[in-house]
Amino acid sequence: MVRFMTETPDLPSEGERSPGGHETPVPKAVVARLSLYSRELQHLIHEGLETTNSSQLGKRLGVTDAQVRKDLAYFGQFGYPGIGYRCSELAEQIRRILGTSELWSVALIGVGNLGHALLRYRGFAKQGFRIDAAFDIAPQLIGTRIEGLEVLPMSSLREAVQRGVRLAILTVPASAAQHVAEQVAEAGIVGVLNFAPVTLSLPDHVAVAGVDLAIELEQLAFAVVNRGPKG
Amino acid sequence: MVRFMTETPDLPSEGERSPGGHETPVPKAVVARLSLYSRELQHLIHEGLETTNSSQLGKRLGVTDAQVRKDLAYFGQFGYPGIGYRCSELAEQIRRILGTSELWSVALIGVGNLGHALLRYRGFAKQGFRIDAAFDIAPQLIGTRIEGLEVLPMSSLREAVQRGVRLAILTVPASAAQHVAEQVAEAGIVGVLNFAPVTLSLPDHVAVAGVDLAIELEQLAFAVVNRGPKG
Repeated sequence: MVRFMTETPDLPSEGERSPGGHETPVPKAVVARLSLYSRELQHLIHEGLETTNSSQLGKRLGVTDAQVRKDLAYFGQFGYPGIGYRCSELAEQIRRILGTSELWSVALIGVGNLGHALLRYRGFAKQGFRIDAAFDIAPQLIGTRIEGLEVLPMSSLREAVQRGVRLAILTVPASAAQHVAEQVAEAGIVGVLNFAPVTLSLPDHVAVAGVDLAIELEQLAFAVVNRGPKG
Repeated sequence: MVRFMTETPDLPSEGERSPGGHETPVPKAVVARLSLYSRELQHLIHEGLETTNSSQLGKRLGVTDAQVRKDLAYFGQFGYPGIGYRCSELAEQIRRILGTSELWSVALIGVGNLGHALLRYRGFAKQGFRIDAAFDIAPQLIGTRIEGLEVLPMSSLREAVQRGVRLAILTVPASAAQHVAEQVAEAGIVGVLNFAPVTLSLPDHVAVAGVDLAIELEQLAFAVVNRGPKG
């Protein structure tokens, strides 16, 4: 379904090869840029633009127009000669590629401070993710309500999966993360977003993404260090 | 100090041009990849590798070897013919470029749930960021201690800046973010990491980075949707 095209005969890096081995997967960096293109298109639409092109999109994100076209070429043919891309159409096509044109039902595991904060985070719903269930292991938390959700015991996770929950956000202490992640995988969750600063080892059929918040601070540090004199 | 090199005559996108206009800045995407190279080098060092090359680094991150070399070429000449890059040396060089070879002192503004969680987040210190001060506007919080830090009133921020705090992490409600950010800028903070899902407008001499946690979920959704059959 997805073709692999680069100028050089790159092999997919470890962990990116699809378990079946039949298709060559798309590099992670390309998928990451899809999210950025999607946000940029949302901004362009918000600014009232109907069309854009690879050069404009690229400039706003600091990549070449050739890179934009190459990234999109993994997924098919987009845009129109002499017009470029229609913003809303490309935005919807990218949502379809990312799998976010439909709503995802998400479980939050670990209702500590970070869990609380994410239950309230408004940025998720805007992009098609709804936190529908909250879980914890602490007996004193189970049965309480946080942001309108009843905190459930881990034993109820399988039931939530049967009700349609597919992803889990893991906001548990680093020391508990691997153990909890295994329970999450056993319950049938297919994707885990891990906020604990540890690398999780899970079966191949469970996708795992880790959040590294320090990267954002690094980018900020660079911007500060390389800032010119006040204009 | 920093040269701008691409195959096409890209102009920097808006907001990237340095205020002085004398130097053409490095595209944001290049700087973002520096963080990823840095993490990958940390992994390689952890795995016991002494040297690597643009092809290996690129493959692990899904970019071409040419892209790796081009990214690094913005900042000078790295690596050795016939050897490649020495991992620790390149890691240190990237830290120097990013500005994280020295410790940054950071203020956290807004000690709600997310603020609490970030005060405990161990991922920051590992990369050279230390949260040294916590601030809030709520009178009932001021004077209390969280994770060993006394919560201070906003009026003490200028003093913290004089003591060496340069960056601020903003974990305040979206409705308060712009107002608080302005106070932060006035106090002399030079970089703001904003967790509120709003775009801040600040003077040019203050660097701003926003955190979009939904991007991580999008990447996870893509991985789930495009996962092959269980291996």
